[in-house]
Amino acid sequence: MSFEITATIASFGGKLLKLAHHAKSTSCQMKLNLYLPPSATPKTPAPLLIYLAGLTCTGDNGAEKGFFQAAASKKGIAILYPDTSPRGLNIAGEDESYDFGSGAGFYVDATKEPWSKGYKMESYITDELPQAVFSQFREIDGGRVGITGHSMGGHGAISLFLRHPGMYKSCSAFAPITNPSECAWGQKAFAGYFGEENKSKWAEHDSTELLKKFEGETDILIDVGTGDNFYKQGQLLPENFEKAAKEAGKKVTVRYQEGYDHSYFFISSFAGEHVEHAARYLCK
Amino acid sequence: MSFEITATIASFGGKLLKLAHHAKSTSCQMKLNLYLPPSATPKTPAPLLIYLAGLTCTGDNGAEKGFFQAAASKKGIAILYPDTSPRGLNIAGEDESYDFGSGAGFYVDATKEPWSKGYKMESYITDELPQAVFSQFREIDGGRVGITGHSMGGHGAISLFLRHPGMYKSCSAFAPITNPSECAWGQKAFAGYFGEENKSKWAEHDSTELLKKFEGETDILIDVGTGDNFYKQGQLLPENFEKAAKEAGKKVTVRYQEGYDHSYFFISSFAGEHVEHAARYLCK
Repeated sequence: MSFEITATIASFGGKLLKLAHHAKSTSCQMKLNLYLPPSATPKTPAPLLIYLAGLTCTGDNGAEKGFFQAAASKKGIAILYPDTSPRGLNIAGEDESYDFGSGAGFYVDATKEPWSKGYKMESYITDELPQAVFSQFREIDGGRVGITGHSMGGHGAISLFLRHPGMYKSCSAFAPITNPSECAWGQKAFAGYFGEENKSKWAEHDSTELLKKFEGETDILIDVGTGDNFYKQGQLLPENFEKAAKEAGKKVTVRYQEGYDHSYFFISSFAGEHVEHAARYLCK
Repeated sequence: MSFEITATIASFGGKLLKLAHHAKSTSCQMKLNLYLPPSATPKTPAPLLIYLAGLTCTGDNGAEKGFFQAAASKKGIAILYPDTSPRGLNIAGEDESYDFGSGAGFYVDATKEPWSKGYKMESYITDELPQAVFSQFREIDGGRVGITGHSMGGHGAISLFLRHPGMYKSCSAFAPITNPSECAWGQKAFAGYFGEENKSKWAEHDSTELLKKFEGETDILIDVGTGDNFYKQGQLLPENFEKAAKEAGKKVTVRYQEGYDHSYFFISSFAGEHVEHAARYLCK
């Protein structure tokens, strides 16, 4: 459904649009932010970089604290900041924990009741949302789309890139959950959305497993902070992803950034470099 | 009193320190943020730019959403983000309105009871806080200090620059309240902190009045968004400040930024240019 534009905010020479629309895939109203760089016009449409946020976030966090707009303005790239889950579906338990349900959709289509009702974030992000954006905003070039994300959203960015060959021309991530089947966050989410026993389904959404079978080329940039407590706790497991990349002969660059944590202070420090990484594929 | 460092956060190659200390001037614990660029060491101390925040803010808003660190890291400038008022003094009415009391100290030393107890933000910002910073952080050069701020903090930056000749080597502001005696926010604050009748005191803290009598040189950079509702409502009155500058032969550059609002999206878009403005005086 077409978007209501609830605010238009000047930002780095372009416009940040606050949007809302009713989404069929998630059975609810979805809010989000879209940044249009100053160069974007219907005659000179901008490529699009999708930023998937992490647990507890909405589409606002990246727009307010990620500072992608600074580099996106210069490179002429639009940025899409979706929400992280459906909201207000009145499913029992949806607001009980920070790492499951509201704010924790994990960018998958749930197959297990009751979550299968509206927790269809993969369909939303890969199909309904971009179709709605491209049909309403002719300032954006639907043929040039990249994806990035943070933590749960890093899992989203990499797994969707690997699950939909050709859909995204670039891929990067900040502190991504790269092997969800092997960490507490991923196990809780996949058990809840797919079922405890459905391990083949788990593998279909696990970036480390997906990479082993991926047939296309990759150039995935990953930053992880060495001071990130979730990295230390084994929630991110970038080593597993690196190992899989090496064995499969895929290009994956993991940079361990000394002393950085898991916060938006970390993301904003490297957002410009991730926009530049995307620009190498989106702005050819 | 010396600072407790409650967190050290990597940001743009440097460190953002979350600090707390008991301040005599404000009779309470004050929290704040201090950004140290990567170049700052006791042997190569960095100059300091103080960012004064606006109504309702704490020292966190600018550090999280102002985007000063990006440019400060490159230029080798430290940034100090103080709070906007004392907190928790238990003065009747201190938490009743967004534009007076807590979060609204206006960077003055109140003379009227009961606010004169701890609402001594001018003393805190110009004396106690910098002394505490310079004595504890030898990575900062106390001889090179500039000041900037937003809205109420823009009033603070300009009025403190004009009231303390020589203390600050640079001055700029985002959407500042430049003629508080003539706008609703300023009138409420000055009546409350100084008394309704004490108009000579008001003039001593009104940047437009101060500029008329200022004997030194100025190079004050001001950005104001043309879409700023508070500008439209006459709370900022940059025209009055410009007129006073012209008549007094002072250099004041007011840039009316098309379509920008009063938010941190506006501040972050021009933060880099304000850091560069400061660098021209701080990094000679």
